[in-house]
Amino acid sequence: MPQLRKDPVTSRWVIVQSERPLGPDDFKIEQQSRSSRACPFCPGNESMTPPEIVSYGRKGAQKPGAGPWQVRVVPNKFPALRIEESLDKMALGVYDRIGGFGAHEVIIESPEHDREIADQPLEQVVTLLRVYRDRCLDLRKDPRFKYVLIFKNFGAQAGASQEHPHSQLIALPVVPSRVMGEVKGSQKHFEHTDRCIFCDMMDQERAEHRLAVYENERFIAIEPFASRFPYETWILPREHQSTFELTPEEHLTDLADALKTALYKIKTLLHNPPYNFMIHSLPIHGREEDSFHWQIEIIPQLTEVSGFELGTGFYINPTPPERAAEALRRVPRP
Amino acid sequence: MPQLRKDPVTSRWVIVQSERPLGPDDFKIEQQSRSSRACPFCPGNESMTPPEIVSYGRKGAQKPGAGPWQVRVVPNKFPALRIEESLDKMALGVYDRIGGFGAHEVIIESPEHDREIADQPLEQVVTLLRVYRDRCLDLRKDPRFKYVLIFKNFGAQAGASQEHPHSQLIALPVVPSRVMGEVKGSQKHFEHTDRCIFCDMMDQERAEHRLAVYENERFIAIEPFASRFPYETWILPREHQSTFELTPEEHLTDLADALKTALYKIKTLLHNPPYNFMIHSLPIHGREEDSFHWQIEIIPQLTEVSGFELGTGFYINPTPPERAAEALRRVPRP
Repeated sequence: MPQLRKDPVTSRWVIVQSERPLGPDDFKIEQQSRSSRACPFCPGNESMTPPEIVSYGRKGAQKPGAGPWQVRVVPNKFPALRIEESLDKMALGVYDRIGGFGAHEVIIESPEHDREIADQPLEQVVTLLRVYRDRCLDLRKDPRFKYVLIFKNFGAQAGASQEHPHSQLIALPVVPSRVMGEVKGSQKHFEHTDRCIFCDMMDQERAEHRLAVYENERFIAIEPFASRFPYETWILPREHQSTFELTPEEHLTDLADALKTALYKIKTLLHNPPYNFMIHSLPIHGREEDSFHWQIEIIPQLTEVSGFELGTGFYINPTPPERAAEALRRVPRP
Repeated sequence: MPQLRKDPVTSRWVIVQSERPLGPDDFKIEQQSRSSRACPFCPGNESMTPPEIVSYGRKGAQKPGAGPWQVRVVPNKFPALRIEESLDKMALGVYDRIGGFGAHEVIIESPEHDREIADQPLEQVVTLLRVYRDRCLDLRKDPRFKYVLIFKNFGAQAGASQEHPHSQLIALPVVPSRVMGEVKGSQKHFEHTDRCIFCDMMDQERAEHRLAVYENERFIAIEPFASRFPYETWILPREHQSTFELTPEEHLTDLADALKTALYKIKTLLHNPPYNFMIHSLPIHGREEDSFHWQIEIIPQLTEVSGFELGTGFYINPTPPERAAEALRRVPRP
């Protein structure tokens, strides 16, 4: 059974998998290249996944198995957390533990095996974002969840175990420490200034024109001033908005355009690198609507993360973000 | 010139290198395998490194160039920070920046090109730890430094760019966020209980015998209860001690024994994996001597770190630490 364990020093939570634990000889096998077996995410192979949660066709959400789909959501076959697990909290001496309760879903982004978000028709990306949003809204109804994280790993080096375009969703009974750090940090700025720090950053960019990569009417893609990674790119709503899943339907096209454009520029400039993205939104029961501003963080995987970074949280970035922004701006739109 | 930049949301510092910035096409080159050129760290090639800072021979510290050396310290040829840079603090609108002041040294661990710490004679490891300690004590004298981090990357996948056994030292004008998180977290526990949380963990282990890998009279190697990574191993002094560089001379042999043994067990069980270690010590001007407990963190690099982990600080560990401890305990000592 999976467990959530809390580090008693830093209060950071870790998911420990004990059901099919990896032994000392399992890691090399895991790193072997993927075989050419049938893809469980391709149309026609639907029976290879656990039973479908929902799928979206040309007319929107449809019942499981209803026919041709554009985006399909299934439980992760090897979940980090399970909805059937308990949420029992337990002290083990100085340690804290929670049962491995949670949800871990896979969002199959398209029926096409070889076409990534950067190359999808805009309408397909809109549908994908609608699915992200609707899954978040659905999972929010369960009061046991504190956070829903949407993320994507592209490429084996970025942690993807399937080639077919897919994203993942993990719903958690705790708020991840880095999200909490952002919520607290932006709240502190708000207490001092009565302003949102993310809005302040965008205001400054409007005057300086140094860090922006792309913008449309409602969203901006920007290299953060203190980027941890080369070509790290954030996508933010230009108007203050704390919660991703409250994005109105009529804003989804602009969001899809910003996400697709940013990924296309990264793919083109950096030769289709492995990457991750994740959506940082206000925690479900968070009250910091005025100070927190949701964003998508895109992190191309270009360098090895060394122990220095892992152990200190102190990153060395070999590419100044203003240079990265300049190079990405020059890449023509798709 | 390198710069330190502060993320205005999370207050995390990042070193941004702008002197020889990496452009979009530089990352693939960087990942190519090392050539068989002459090793700059081997005896006879001393002129290939920047001028020596200090070296240690059979009789201890000796003047630069004094003859055969056991351990040799040189400035990093491509430093992340430089002692010549300014410490000027500057606000750039909502952002904060510091000049790239700092020190970045390479500690060549042995004259032997092919012998890692796990396989060194104990006396050589003692000398290495003495050098770590003496460099920290020397750099503490400069009041501009707030933290000295000793770390090692072994293997290209763990960020090492040279094969010859070496560690690194970075002296920083700020305290890294993860170290600060540990200092604050342990201080909080102390305020509630009047006890050190690390000492509490070791007390609990003495009763439970679940997580320890190895111990001698003065040091213990243990898998943390909420390990982020499979086979993550910490080495701690069994008696409370906040500051690595205050380790008495007569304790260095036990420390060397614990470090060498832990690395030997990891190397043997996990087939010589890439790894990182770093020393977490109380910050130079820190006053939390009673609550903070220094430790060496060893992190074998067995799995790809995905965006989920990077973006959330929320790790998924596929190997329960009690199983890792059991397997490591079974490996015979060197």
